[in-house]
Amino acid sequence: MKTVLVSSNPGKAREFQQLFQQHGLELEVEPLRTVEIQADSLEEIAVFSCLQAYNILKKPVIVEDAGLFVEALNGFPGPYSAYVYRTIGVDGLLRLIAGRPRDARFESVIAFYGPQHGMRIFRGECRGRIADEPRGSSGFGFDPIFIPEGRDETFAEMGSSEKNVVSHRGRAVSKLIAWLQEPR
Amino acid sequence: MKTVLVSSNPGKAREFQQLFQQHGLELEVEPLRTVEIQADSLEEIAVFSCLQAYNILKKPVIVEDAGLFVEALNGFPGPYSAYVYRTIGVDGLLRLIAGRPRDARFESVIAFYGPQHGMRIFRGECRGRIADEPRGSSGFGFDPIFIPEGRDETFAEMGSSEKNVVSHRGRAVSKLIAWLQEPR
Repeated sequence: MKTVLVSSNPGKAREFQQLFQQHGLELEVEPLRTVEIQADSLEEIAVFSCLQAYNILKKPVIVEDAGLFVEALNGFPGPYSAYVYRTIGVDGLLRLIAGRPRDARFESVIAFYGPQHGMRIFRGECRGRIADEPRGSSGFGFDPIFIPEGRDETFAEMGSSEKNVVSHRGRAVSKLIAWLQEPR
Repeated sequence: MKTVLVSSNPGKAREFQQLFQQHGLELEVEPLRTVEIQADSLEEIAVFSCLQAYNILKKPVIVEDAGLFVEALNGFPGPYSAYVYRTIGVDGLLRLIAGRPRDARFESVIAFYGPQHGMRIFRGECRGRIADEPRGSSGFGFDPIFIPEGRDETFAEMGSSEKNVVSHRGRAVSKLIAWLQEPR
């Protein structure tokens, strides 16, 4: 079964592609624009978009939603990370946490929907901290200021295969792949 | 015709009620929770929620969406003002604009839908600036740090009838009321 990822984010699609290729699986990327809802949980957003995409494409689809949750900011920017990145950016986030604890986590939720299997959810989390200043140019979004636990480099200082080993998205995609490869 | 406002925000409902009463019109408030979409325009969000509410209630409904747009922050927090208020709050916004131009505007978009009239949109805007520190306790959300043009008090230092005269919401509701009172 060829899997269809609905996403208009090339950075996200690249990370998915790499993991699928490593496991000898095919992935098609469909840049369909679905409606994203406002919700405090990534899961609600992913499920809503996934059902829309399925209703349009009429084939099994996956949608991923991810966000950066900063503890000292009550989880901000969370599900609105893309909007916050576009408006106040990395500099804005650094201003907000100046002088505060820098613990943060990235979360990824993948929603898969197909008529045979119904809705399946795969989650990944990566704990870490916000860097003092942006470093690196790989990845996208807040990658230059996120340092995963046990490392010194930011996500943006890693190649995408290195990032995939520890990242929230890499972990969620690995669970999805394990499920796709189960004998049926 | 009795008008139905769909809102679960008591502060917003109070401001609507006051203007309707001043014009001798009846307003019913329905605290239905509709899905709010993620969009950079208030209009898309209000229209989407309004159609949902109509489909559930099967009677003419109005939905309002509003936001604070800070110029130096590329319009942030905009359509996500409620979420941003809940997470980083007034203090977070003040940190973000420390040392920057403080121009900002509040916008309100009201969507009305009824089978006879279709979708109607009413807009209101209030230009102003972000205060140096929070003042006052009326209103809700970012009211304590917003000073409308030509005034010295924040929205939160005004009573709701005084705020309604100059506010984005007051202006949008006045246009809605003028339309409701047109002879048909």
